[in-house]
Amino acid sequence: MTKKKGLVIVNTGNGKGKTTAALGLLFRAWGRGMNVCMLQFIKNENAKYGEIKAAHKLGIEITPTGDGFTWLSKDMDKTTARARHGWALAQEKIASGEYDVIVLDEFTYPLHFDWLDTEEVIAWLKEHKPPMLHLVITGRNAPEKLIEFADLVTEMQEIKHPYQEGIQGQPGVEF
Amino acid sequence: MTKKKGLVIVNTGNGKGKTTAALGLLFRAWGRGMNVCMLQFIKNENAKYGEIKAAHKLGIEITPTGDGFTWLSKDMDKTTARARHGWALAQEKIASGEYDVIVLDEFTYPLHFDWLDTEEVIAWLKEHKPPMLHLVITGRNAPEKLIEFADLVTEMQEIKHPYQEGIQGQPGVEF
Repeated sequence: MTKKKGLVIVNTGNGKGKTTAALGLLFRAWGRGMNVCMLQFIKNENAKYGEIKAAHKLGIEITPTGDGFTWLSKDMDKTTARARHGWALAQEKIASGEYDVIVLDEFTYPLHFDWLDTEEVIAWLKEHKPPMLHLVITGRNAPEKLIEFADLVTEMQEIKHPYQEGIQGQPGVEF
Repeated sequence: MTKKKGLVIVNTGNGKGKTTAALGLLFRAWGRGMNVCMLQFIKNENAKYGEIKAAHKLGIEITPTGDGFTWLSKDMDKTTARARHGWALAQEKIASGEYDVIVLDEFTYPLHFDWLDTEEVIAWLKEHKPPMLHLVITGRNAPEKLIEFADLVTEMQEIKHPYQEGIQGQPGVEF
């Protein structure tokens, strides 16, 4: 017998397509009239990414909460505080029961760098995630405990990358 | 020195997210006002997928050209003819110069099953693909020659899948 449930999906690995696949999933679910949103844990609030522009056009909620990657940050306490703030926002949205799909984009980083405690996050999700909510988490270095907790885990592996040949990142395609 | 060019991008592997990442890329490029389209080589013209519904809402062109997977097809000649027809449509759109991003979804299958000749396809692309066009090809079993030709190749690897636990595919999330 098969059953339905809201999946915990993790897109990890060093290749492209982790966030992009999450966006595609949002887009597809939005096409079915589902209630969707994305919280971005690393991207800067002032950034003008293609996906944010597209989401605005559609009325899909995408909320950047980060301050860029940690190696760009001068103040680790501030970075940690931001991650906690982002997670508090995520908890609010998850617990609200108003969404069918929520993406926590690049949420593996606050876990990997111990800005947030992975076991606490999982314990909270076990208690508060609505059973039918699909939760998508993206980013490199997904902690082993998160992989154990997830239902669907995909590793995006880089086989070939044009940066190797001196071609730069392309707006609309890579960001 | 870095340079810009239209990339040939391949999403392959046995994991989830190949088509989904291509959709995310379309969505992101659409957000930047780029001209985008997707041709689907396997999906049935009558199918009601979430991405087709979403694309219709946005005015993004998604054209199914397939008749479902070959093991569902009773007539291999018809399957081959459909693949050729799909490729002819793709050639028209590629050569038109009207697009910034074109996705050939599940295009690896007609190549893998030799419904189309991989070398001929690559030779044609070398001659006719506009230099700034980004071309995205998805599907399992990408032929080695296609991988050599591509600029950016990602392999999506399945680490964990809920079907193993008897959970069924979910509308809006997986299709």
